[in-house]
Amino acid sequence: MSYLDDILKSRRDTRHFTTDEVPDEVIEKALQAGHWAPSVGLTDATRYFIIKSPEVKTAVKNLFLDYNKKAEELTDNPEQKERYKSLKLEAIEEAPIGLIIAYDRSVLNQFTIGTVGSNEAVKFSSVCAAQNIWLSLTEQGYGMGWVSILNYYQFKKILDLPENIEPLGYFCIGKPATNYDNQPMLQQLNWKQKSEAPDCKEIKNITECHISDLPNKISAKNETESDFNTLLQEKIDSKTKPLGALGTLETLAFQMATVFETLNPKIINPNIVVFAADHGIANHGVSAYPQDVTRQMVANFLEGGAAINVFCNQNDIHLSIVDAGVNYDFPTNANLINAKIAKGTQSFLHVPAMSENELNLCFEKGKAIVEDIAKTGCNCIGFGEMGIGNTSTASVLMSLLTDSPIEECTGKGTGIENEKLLQKQELLKKAIENYSGQAELKQHLAYFGGFEILQIASGMLTAYENKMLILVDGFICSVAFLIASKINPDIHKNAVFCHCSAEKAHQGLLNYFDAKPILNLDLRLGEGTGCAIAFPILKSAEVFLNDMASFESAGVSRK
Amino acid sequence: MSYLDDILKSRRDTRHFTTDEVPDEVIEKALQAGHWAPSVGLTDATRYFIIKSPEVKTAVKNLFLDYNKKAEELTDNPEQKERYKSLKLEAIEEAPIGLIIAYDRSVLNQFTIGTVGSNEAVKFSSVCAAQNIWLSLTEQGYGMGWVSILNYYQFKKILDLPENIEPLGYFCIGKPATNYDNQPMLQQLNWKQKSEAPDCKEIKNITECHISDLPNKISAKNETESDFNTLLQEKIDSKTKPLGALGTLETLAFQMATVFETLNPKIINPNIVVFAADHGIANHGVSAYPQDVTRQMVANFLEGGAAINVFCNQNDIHLSIVDAGVNYDFPTNANLINAKIAKGTQSFLHVPAMSENELNLCFEKGKAIVEDIAKTGCNCIGFGEMGIGNTSTASVLMSLLTDSPIEECTGKGTGIENEKLLQKQELLKKAIENYSGQAELKQHLAYFGGFEILQIASGMLTAYENKMLILVDGFICSVAFLIASKINPDIHKNAVFCHCSAEKAHQGLLNYFDAKPILNLDLRLGEGTGCAIAFPILKSAEVFLNDMASFESAGVSRK
Repeated sequence: MSYLDDILKSRRDTRHFTTDEVPDEVIEKALQAGHWAPSVGLTDATRYFIIKSPEVKTAVKNLFLDYNKKAEELTDNPEQKERYKSLKLEAIEEAPIGLIIAYDRSVLNQFTIGTVGSNEAVKFSSVCAAQNIWLSLTEQGYGMGWVSILNYYQFKKILDLPENIEPLGYFCIGKPATNYDNQPMLQQLNWKQKSEAPDCKEIKNITECHISDLPNKISAKNETESDFNTLLQEKIDSKTKPLGALGTLETLAFQMATVFETLNPKIINPNIVVFAADHGIANHGVSAYPQDVTRQMVANFLEGGAAINVFCNQNDIHLSIVDAGVNYDFPTNANLINAKIAKGTQSFLHVPAMSENELNLCFEKGKAIVEDIAKTGCNCIGFGEMGIGNTSTASVLMSLLTDSPIEECTGKGTGIENEKLLQKQELLKKAIENYSGQAELKQHLAYFGGFEILQIASGMLTAYENKMLILVDGFICSVAFLIASKINPDIHKNAVFCHCSAEKAHQGLLNYFDAKPILNLDLRLGEGTGCAIAFPILKSAEVFLNDMASFESAGVSRK
Repeated sequence: MSYLDDILKSRRDTRHFTTDEVPDEVIEKALQAGHWAPSVGLTDATRYFIIKSPEVKTAVKNLFLDYNKKAEELTDNPEQKERYKSLKLEAIEEAPIGLIIAYDRSVLNQFTIGTVGSNEAVKFSSVCAAQNIWLSLTEQGYGMGWVSILNYYQFKKILDLPENIEPLGYFCIGKPATNYDNQPMLQQLNWKQKSEAPDCKEIKNITECHISDLPNKISAKNETESDFNTLLQEKIDSKTKPLGALGTLETLAFQMATVFETLNPKIINPNIVVFAADHGIANHGVSAYPQDVTRQMVANFLEGGAAINVFCNQNDIHLSIVDAGVNYDFPTNANLINAKIAKGTQSFLHVPAMSENELNLCFEKGKAIVEDIAKTGCNCIGFGEMGIGNTSTASVLMSLLTDSPIEECTGKGTGIENEKLLQKQELLKKAIENYSGQAELKQHLAYFGGFEILQIASGMLTAYENKMLILVDGFICSVAFLIASKINPDIHKNAVFCHCSAEKAHQGLLNYFDAKPILNLDLRLGEGTGCAIAFPILKSAEVFLNDMASFESAGVSRK
């Protein structure tokens, strides 16, 4: 055994001291030993504080007593607790010298070599210094005991240590009164036995782990959809959050990526298009507002004063306004897209709302409008509507296309009261009974349709063909979606149901689609406002998928 | 100079080795020296792994290169960067022997002497072993270099180290090719000069510290609110939309106006504050993640990679991060608010989570943080939390404060499964049964509380006093709100419940408050993400009330 080994082996964590003084030279020599310890990046961050004052020692002792009480309570069983209480774990008041070994973490304010993986290296340098001091004291015939049973926060406070100084503990220094039979005190007292030899294994090979960059755009030809979906799900699950913890946002992000066919989906030039038109059925008192409000509201859209304006403005969404068939001649306005089929539909109470020709025209116009928007690069389109009386139109279409009783498809629209609501239901029921045409989609649409609703349905189909995300607003737009989905059921893949309206029938329709809407805020305004208000949630889905760190990149442990 | 001093002084952090082999006896002797190092509570937790395989070395070298690149980017200026790049900081592939010194943190699963103040003592014992090994190798004529520039997460992964084994670094061992002129290499190369002598001061007296008691309820002045409320409702109803058609947005706008005491409320400098802390109860396996994730996530917040970062960024919300009591020493960081009470609470399974003093300190710190934020002009504050194990803490507090069975207050947290969830319930039930203290709020909070939860509760009370809108996130923050509302029930006026979490108990708690949350997106992430995601909805309430046209101004007919 070498001379060094002898010192290493005889070094003890000492809690029993004689009353002998410790000469200053001994401490100086020991601190010099500490100073020779490694210092990561030469930070030189170790700091020492000497305590001789009985007042200070007593205050520290009280902190120890406080936390030792706490430690007693942490023991695993009553027997252990009793044994624990019998142990002497410090000599704060008896040891002639108290030493605090600390490190100054403010060194990390500058670039520090060796701390990129963990800044603990600074702390470890000071621990090495502690060990050197221990060894030096041992060689000089003195001993040290490390007291860590302290509330470090209060410890710093009573000693008035600066914020950036972090103590490793309180060290008691003096002449040892015993060498514990040349073994650790806890072993001598049979608290535990230390293992005979160090625990060492050889590592002969590595475990491969792939943390490669995820590919950008997957071409559908080379990769099957399931490969893409697997990669996408892996990307979502790699983010620093518990699995599935972003709930609906994760579903939305998944959908966005599959619709845009990229693992890094970005919403580009989002656009909400409000289609406005009048309805013959409005003449029968189905609405709380006069028909004239349709054109007044179009003017309000163009002036920027409507709800949809302020929400689009808030969320940086481009807003397009379409005259799909308002009962009014608007002056030429560059901001109003003219797709007027006629000045409102006829009342389907007695006659078809529109001709087959007008129906085809609706599909043509709706398609052209969305194709133009697609040319701007837009890949996310919301649909809104304005048309006094259009909840009645929508209710009838829902009833026919989902084969549901009209009562389940009718609501209060812009706000009609109970009696008036019953009248509305009766009226619509009668309209359906009056119908003697074919039970075919096209015939139903021409007889009961609305210009804005059909243009929206066509626009949605075009949006699907252009791989756009389709934002579905409230009840009326959901009926337009219902029409579109009857024509092409695949469109569901691209649809985002933005909210559940306070219009009663909307919940039923969402159930029919098996859709979970993003918001449930009792909105019943239309105009695409639900799309505009929900839009930031979609953006949240986008940014989490694109911008959040992964467990690997952030160095965060997975479960 | 003694023999020991000579070894201590000549020990070098070596990065230049000859090709000489290292005999097995040398390593054995060195590891024995490590084995003689102190071991807190005789935990014997140090573990060694030897590496000779070139394949393994190359894999480790690649990890080094990756992080060294990162370190280059962290340098303070271009000149320093060039100098840094010229340094040789490892010898992973050349050194004949690689050694990993690690500690097994699973020893902390049992009661361990000396770890009540900080469980870092276990880690420190292994660092002392590292220093002993260094000294032994020096005495034997060999050298060692400590490599800490590594992503420890990947390091563990490629070496297939168990979750509970935490490496201090990778150590290169061999015959030194130089002694760097008997000084540290970085000093020889003039990177820095080490100070001549150790930095040591004497502490001669203590500082008294006073911590005030819990805040009292502040009674708000009862003003004649009804006139204001009438005017406000008229303003809302004058907007060009059917009455009440903006649903929850109208309620929010009303609330915002009354809290800010103006008909034209504007959100100013919105701020989300995430409080992070560790929980003693986490040692009992109540979480799917290790406790270390708390500090890793704080690092992630500071790096901008977490969910809350991207959502705050998306929605222009200022983000503040608070260390309320994480079991880790963070380096000084201007972006991290230091409000550390201690390195985590104690496990309330057997002992109080914190002392009364610590409890009072939580209220003091939470208050100071929000007062500082109020000084920035902020009138809308969201609260978030991070803390492995804190759903357990929250569940117990909810159970006690709402007088509900623990089963109704427990959920899966970050994602534990059925059986583990039952275990968690049993454990929490036991903890409550073990409690023999008073059934008083203060006693409950000290015994079962968490540092972040209590600081949040205090922050919420302070936000109320400062007439701020208080954004309440998910389950844990709602429990903090529960505490705050027990102290001052008036706080309800200012609270916006941002979402209903997928954490089961949250719905129950919202029902207890009779609160309707804005969002219902199955989120269960915490961090204040629900507040950040819901924030645009609040903005929508603000902009509709301020920016929409009235029927009169837009010339639209009322009904």
